[in-house]
Amino acid sequence: MDFKQLLDDRRVMPFLGKARFGVEKESHRVDLSGNLAKTDHPSSLSVQDHHPYIQRDFSETQMELITPVTESLEELLNFLSAIHDVTYRSISEDEMLWPLSMPPALPQNEEEIVIAKLNNPASVEYRQALAKSYGRRKQMISGIHFNFEFSEELLKALFSAQTEIADYDQFKTAVYLKVTRNYLHYRWLYTYLFGASPLSEQNFFEENTTNEPVRSLRNSKFGYTNREDVKVSFNSIHDYVSDLTTLVKNGQLVEEKEFYSPVRLRGGQRVADLQNHGIQYIELRNIDLNPFELNGISYEQAKFLHVFLVYLLWKEEGACSDEWVQEGDLNNNTVALEHPLEKTAFHKEARTIVEEMEQFVQKFKLEVPESLFENVKNMIEEPTLTLAGRLVEQIGTGEQCQVATTFAKDNYDTAWKHPYQLAGFTDMELSTQILLFDAMQQGIKVDIIDRQEQFIKLQVNEHVEYVKNGNMTSKDTYISSLIMENKTVTKKILHAHGYRVPQGEEFQSEEQAMRAYQQFSTKPFVVKPKSTNYGLGISIFKEGAAYEDYEKAISLAFKEDSSVLLEEFIHGTEYRFFVVDGKVLAVLLRVPANVEGDGKQTIEELVAQKNRDPLRGRDHRTPLEIIQLGELEKLMLKGQGFEISSVPKSGEIVYLRENSNISTGGDSIDVTDQIPDDYKKIAAEAVTAIGARICGIDLLIENTEVPATDENAYGIIEANFNPSMYMHIYPYKGESRRVTQHILRLLFPEVG
Amino acid sequence: MDFKQLLDDRRVMPFLGKARFGVEKESHRVDLSGNLAKTDHPSSLSVQDHHPYIQRDFSETQMELITPVTESLEELLNFLSAIHDVTYRSISEDEMLWPLSMPPALPQNEEEIVIAKLNNPASVEYRQALAKSYGRRKQMISGIHFNFEFSEELLKALFSAQTEIADYDQFKTAVYLKVTRNYLHYRWLYTYLFGASPLSEQNFFEENTTNEPVRSLRNSKFGYTNREDVKVSFNSIHDYVSDLTTLVKNGQLVEEKEFYSPVRLRGGQRVADLQNHGIQYIELRNIDLNPFELNGISYEQAKFLHVFLVYLLWKEEGACSDEWVQEGDLNNNTVALEHPLEKTAFHKEARTIVEEMEQFVQKFKLEVPESLFENVKNMIEEPTLTLAGRLVEQIGTGEQCQVATTFAKDNYDTAWKHPYQLAGFTDMELSTQILLFDAMQQGIKVDIIDRQEQFIKLQVNEHVEYVKNGNMTSKDTYISSLIMENKTVTKKILHAHGYRVPQGEEFQSEEQAMRAYQQFSTKPFVVKPKSTNYGLGISIFKEGAAYEDYEKAISLAFKEDSSVLLEEFIHGTEYRFFVVDGKVLAVLLRVPANVEGDGKQTIEELVAQKNRDPLRGRDHRTPLEIIQLGELEKLMLKGQGFEISSVPKSGEIVYLRENSNISTGGDSIDVTDQIPDDYKKIAAEAVTAIGARICGIDLLIENTEVPATDENAYGIIEANFNPSMYMHIYPYKGESRRVTQHILRLLFPEVG
Repeated sequence: MDFKQLLDDRRVMPFLGKARFGVEKESHRVDLSGNLAKTDHPSSLSVQDHHPYIQRDFSETQMELITPVTESLEELLNFLSAIHDVTYRSISEDEMLWPLSMPPALPQNEEEIVIAKLNNPASVEYRQALAKSYGRRKQMISGIHFNFEFSEELLKALFSAQTEIADYDQFKTAVYLKVTRNYLHYRWLYTYLFGASPLSEQNFFEENTTNEPVRSLRNSKFGYTNREDVKVSFNSIHDYVSDLTTLVKNGQLVEEKEFYSPVRLRGGQRVADLQNHGIQYIELRNIDLNPFELNGISYEQAKFLHVFLVYLLWKEEGACSDEWVQEGDLNNNTVALEHPLEKTAFHKEARTIVEEMEQFVQKFKLEVPESLFENVKNMIEEPTLTLAGRLVEQIGTGEQCQVATTFAKDNYDTAWKHPYQLAGFTDMELSTQILLFDAMQQGIKVDIIDRQEQFIKLQVNEHVEYVKNGNMTSKDTYISSLIMENKTVTKKILHAHGYRVPQGEEFQSEEQAMRAYQQFSTKPFVVKPKSTNYGLGISIFKEGAAYEDYEKAISLAFKEDSSVLLEEFIHGTEYRFFVVDGKVLAVLLRVPANVEGDGKQTIEELVAQKNRDPLRGRDHRTPLEIIQLGELEKLMLKGQGFEISSVPKSGEIVYLRENSNISTGGDSIDVTDQIPDDYKKIAAEAVTAIGARICGIDLLIENTEVPATDENAYGIIEANFNPSMYMHIYPYKGESRRVTQHILRLLFPEVG
Repeated sequence: MDFKQLLDDRRVMPFLGKARFGVEKESHRVDLSGNLAKTDHPSSLSVQDHHPYIQRDFSETQMELITPVTESLEELLNFLSAIHDVTYRSISEDEMLWPLSMPPALPQNEEEIVIAKLNNPASVEYRQALAKSYGRRKQMISGIHFNFEFSEELLKALFSAQTEIADYDQFKTAVYLKVTRNYLHYRWLYTYLFGASPLSEQNFFEENTTNEPVRSLRNSKFGYTNREDVKVSFNSIHDYVSDLTTLVKNGQLVEEKEFYSPVRLRGGQRVADLQNHGIQYIELRNIDLNPFELNGISYEQAKFLHVFLVYLLWKEEGACSDEWVQEGDLNNNTVALEHPLEKTAFHKEARTIVEEMEQFVQKFKLEVPESLFENVKNMIEEPTLTLAGRLVEQIGTGEQCQVATTFAKDNYDTAWKHPYQLAGFTDMELSTQILLFDAMQQGIKVDIIDRQEQFIKLQVNEHVEYVKNGNMTSKDTYISSLIMENKTVTKKILHAHGYRVPQGEEFQSEEQAMRAYQQFSTKPFVVKPKSTNYGLGISIFKEGAAYEDYEKAISLAFKEDSSVLLEEFIHGTEYRFFVVDGKVLAVLLRVPANVEGDGKQTIEELVAQKNRDPLRGRDHRTPLEIIQLGELEKLMLKGQGFEISSVPKSGEIVYLRENSNISTGGDSIDVTDQIPDDYKKIAAEAVTAIGARICGIDLLIENTEVPATDENAYGIIEANFNPSMYMHIYPYKGESRRVTQHILRLLFPEVG
C-alpha cells in the first residue's frame, strides 16, 4: 500500500488532522511529605470498580485517571484537568498525587504494598498473579496510556482513494499496523524527547543498582516489560492474534492484557475480535509522566505525538516487519538508558526525522503550535531541554523525591486555589462547573453538547439526561418554565391557589392605566413595564401618589413596554428560596454591595480589601463579584454624605448600591437554618402550585417571627426557572448548600 | 343602611364599576325553514348532562348556552359568541338556533314535545313534573338568565365604610336584598326597553288569544310564572327562605328551583344555605332574547343592566318592601302588555329614572358607552326604537316566524363564514382559537390566562392543564424544548441516534471558518449564522465554492451572528411531519406562493382571484395568507421573464416567491396519505430521540419511493417545539387533520 500517494489525494487532505484521543493516567496518592498514602481510595468518589473517570490500577494508592474519547487535544486536556480537580478535591485534604512515573519510596517488605481493594474478586486475583510474576514493586510504576484513533472521515477518504483492499475493516487494520510498526521502530525519538523516569526511589530495585540517571527507566529493560520469551509479531493481524493466543494458552501470560507492548492494538473485548472487526484504535503505553505538568502531559507533547503518528503513516517502513520492530526495541532501550544530559547516539537521525516531519506538516497543512518544531529541534541539540534533562538538572545534587514533592505540592495548591472552579471548564457558568464536578465525582459520565450555551449531557448506563445552565432539565415541564417566564401568569396562578402576591393590573394603554388612578392613589404601589429588565421604567410609590406623579410614572413605563403592570408594593426583606422537588434546600439573603468601617481605612481601601477575597471575581465565574466604585456607587455614597475617601466609623455599614444583586457586588448570606419552617412550606408549596420541580422563588417577608399564615405575612415576588445555584454553594456568609447534588439525585435517583 | 352615603365614600368609589357576570341563554334548535328540530342533541358535543358550556334545558331541542363567570362584560360577550360558534358548528349543518324567546310553532299534540333525554333520571323526572304542572308549551319559552355579582373589592370597601352590620355575609345579603327589591320594583323599565316577545306562534296558547302584539308576553302574566298562590317575601333572607321552604313542604312547588321569580337569590346548593353563608350573587331571569343579536343580548343592553343594578343599590327604596315589590310586579305586567309601538304609561317615570341614572354615572365616574344614555332616552321617547317596537315594525303585515327565520339564517351564515375562527377570540392565534373550540366542544373548561401571550388554562374536574400557543404543554419537558431551540444540539443528538442530519461544523471566528475551506470546497453546502432568522446571512453553494466566494459567504454570515454554521446541503423536497406522542398525525408540503395560468388572465388578476379565497387573510389569523405583489415578488417574476401584466399559459405554474413559508402566501398541501410509512417512522422516532412529545419535524426527501433506510434517503433539517397546527387543519389542498384534538387527548386522556 503506497500511503505516501494515498495521503496526497485531494479528498484525503482536508481530514488529515482529524483524530480522536483518550488518556489513562496513573498516579500514586502520597501524603504532603511525599510518602505513599496509607489510606484507602477516597469514599467521596462513587466507589465503583468501573468509575468512568477515576479508578484504581494495581495498588490501592495508584489512581487511574481516565478521560473520555475526545475529538481534539484541547478537549482531551480540558477533561484531564477537570478529572485532576475532581481527584484532588476528592482525596483527603492532606494527600496529593505523586508526579513521577517511578513510584515514591516503597516499603522494604513488598508485601506491605496494598493491592487495590476492588469489588470484583477476579480483578483482585489478576493483580495477585501479577504481583507473583513481576513482584509488587514493578507494578507500582505509573505512566500515561495514550489512545489514538484516526477520524472516520479520514479513514473513509483513504479507503476510497485506494483499490488494493476491498474490505474497510481490513483496510483500517492495515493502516494501524503500519503506524504501529513504525511507531515501535521510531519510538526512541519520543523516549529521547519526553522520557522522564531517570531515577528510582528507595526500595524500588531489590538489588542496589547504579545511581547514575538515565532518560527513562520505565521504557528501558528495567521498566515495565514482559519476560524475554514473550514475543509477538506485528507483521499481520493474524500473526499478532495467533502469537498472543499461544502465549496465553502456554501460560506464558496470565491474560492477553498482560502483554505489555509499548503499543497495544485495540478493538473488541478480546484480541480475537481484532481479526473479525479490525483494529479500532491503538494505545500508546510508553508515555512517562511529565513531572512539569499537572496533567502529566503537555499540549505540545500530545500534539507532537499526534503529528508523529500521522507522519508515521506516511513514512516508508522497513521491508521485514519483525526485524523493523526489533531494531526499534533495541534502539529505544539504548536511548532510554543514555545519560539525560548527554546528546543521544541517534542525534543525526533525530534531526533528520524532525526536519522531515516539519516539511510533512507544511505540505499537508496540519495545524501545530507555532513553536513546536523549533522547540523539538532545540531539545535535540540541547539535552538539558528534554524532560529527563530538565528533571535531572533540577535535582542537581539533591534528592529526586524532594523535587517531586515540591512539584506535587504546587499541583495541590493549584487544585485547591479556586475550589469552586472546575479546571478545563472555567469558561462555563459557575453553576454548570459545579454540577459537572459533582457528576464526575459521582461517576456520572459528562459530555459538553454546546459549550457556549451551557448544554451538557449526563449519562449513567443507558440513562441519559440533558441539562442546560445547570438546572434546566427533563424534570420540569415546558409549560412550567413558560409560566414562570410570564410574571402575570405566575401571579394569577399563585393567587388562584391562595398565595399572597402583589395585587395589580395589567394595562395596554396609558389612557387605560390613567383611569385606574383612584384604585392605587392612596396605597403603596409600583408601576413597571411588563417584561423589561434592569429596573428601567419602574417607579415605586411607597405611600401612594399624586395625580401628576402617577401620570409621569405611567408614561415612563410605557416608554419601555407596550404592557404595563400596576402592582401593590409589599414591604419586607426579600429572600430567595431554592426549591427542588417540593423541598426547600437553601434560603439566601442578598445584601447590596457594602463595606464595614473600621475607623481607620477609607471606603476605597475597604472596598479594595473586600475585593481581595478569592471568592470575588468577574462575570459570574466566581461566587461573588468585585465591588465597583463607579458612577452609581459614588452617587449612592454622596446620598449618604460620603466620598470614597471618607473613613467610616468602626462597625458602620456603608452601602454602595441600592439593589442587592450578587452581580453588582452584593453579599450572599445563607439563612436556611434561620428561616422558620412555615415559610419554607409556603415557598415549597407555591413552587408545586406552578408545577415546577426546580425553582428559585422570591418571598418578601417583613418579620419572620410572625407566622406565615398571618394575613400579609409575606408576598411572593417571582419564581425563577433558571435560578443561580452557585450563590447557595459558595455564600459570602453562612453554610454552603450543595444544591447541585440534589439536582443530580433528582435526575439519577439510581445513583448514590 | 344609608347606601347613598356609603357609595360616596372615597374608599368605595374606585371599585364601584367592578363586578362579575355570567349568562345562561336558552335557544331552540330549528331546521333551516324555522321548524322545531326533530333530531337529538348533537353527538359532536361531549354528551354530558353537565357540559360546562352547552346543555339542554326543558326539551331535547332547547339548548342552554352557559358562559363562565367573567370580570367584564367584554369577556362575557366574547365567551357567549364563542359558545355560539361552537354550538352552531356542533349541531347538524341544516339546523340553526331560533332567535326569539317565544318558541317556534309547536306540535298540536303537546306530548310530541320531547323532554330532554338526560342521563340523570331525577332530571328527567323533574321535567316530567313541570310538564304536568305547567304544560309542555309554557316550558318551551326561552330567555337569558343574567348572573350578577358585585366585586369582592367593592363589597369589602362598602363593608368597611359602615358599622351597622358586623358580619360580612349578612352585610352582603343586605346589599343584594336591596338591589333585588329595587330591581323587582323598577324592572318595568327594562321590560319597556328590552322586552322582545310580542307575539306567540302557532299552538303556543291552548285557547286562541288576541293577535295584538305586546312588549313581552314572556314577562307578562301569560309568560313563565308561578301560580298566583306562590308568594315569597324579599323583606329579609329569613322570610325568603322560610316562605320558599314552606311552599315546597306544602307541595305548592316541586323543588325550590321551580320558584320562577324574575330575580333569584343565589349562594350554596340549597336555599337554606343563603341564611348561613349569605347571598353570593343574584340571577336576573326577566331578559327576553334580543332577536337582533346573535348572542341574544347586546353589549349596550348588558352595560345598561349593570349600571342599572349599581344605581338601584344607591337609589332609595319603599318603606314597606313586600308592597314595594308587589307594586313592581303590577307595573311590570302593565308595561309588558302595552302595545310595542305606543308610548308607555310610565313615560315620565322612565325619563326621570334615566336622567337620574345618567347623573349617577357621571358623579361616580362609571364607564359606559358614550351613546348609552342618548340611545335609552331616545327609546323612551320613541317606542319604535325599543326591541319589541323594532321587531313588530319589521314584521309589519308579515309573519313573525318568517322574520325570525331570516334572523336565524343570518346568524347561521355568520357562524359558518369563517369556520376556522372562534368568535370572541379572533385576536388570538389561529391554532389557539381552534384548540379553544375543540376544548369547549368536548366540555373542557377554558380560561384565558394571558390573552396577548396565548396562555390558556384547560380544566376537567380537578385536572388542570396550562397551554401556551396551542401546543406548549406540560407533556413536553423543559429540556426538550431547549434542545429543539438549539439547532446544533438537535443535530448532535439526532446524529448520535443514527439519523441523517446535514453534517457540519460550528465556527466562532472567520479565521477558524476559513481554515475549513478544504472540507467544504467540493461539495454542496450552506453557510449560515447560528441563530438569526429570515434567511439573513445565508449562502447556499449547491456545487461547492471557489475560495473567494467562500470567503465572502463566511464574512457575510459573521455579520449576523458570532457563531456560524457550515453545513452539508441536502437536496430534496421539505416535508413537515406533525408528531404527537410518537405518532405522525399529518404531513404537509409547503409550496411557495404561486398562481396557475389560464391563458387569459394576467398574473395580477390571477393573484387577485386566488386571494379571494376566504381562507386567505393577514397576520396568521386565517389558514392562508394574502399573496403580495411587492418588490420581492416582482423581482422573482422578472427572473423568470414575467411582469405582473404577463399572461401565463393555461396550466403554467408561476412562482412568486423563493421560500415556501405559508406566511408569505405559500400553499399548504396535506400529503399525509401519500408519504410512505417508513418515512413517518423515521420522523416519529427522531422526535422521540430528542425527548419531545409534540413536535413539527422537517425532513428533506429527494424521492419518497426510495426506502427511508437507504443511505442519504432523507435529511432532518430541524425540529420545531412550536409548530403551527392550523396549517394542517385548514390546508390549501388535501385532507384536514384536526391535530388539536390529539393535543387535547394527550392532555386529557380521561375525556372522550
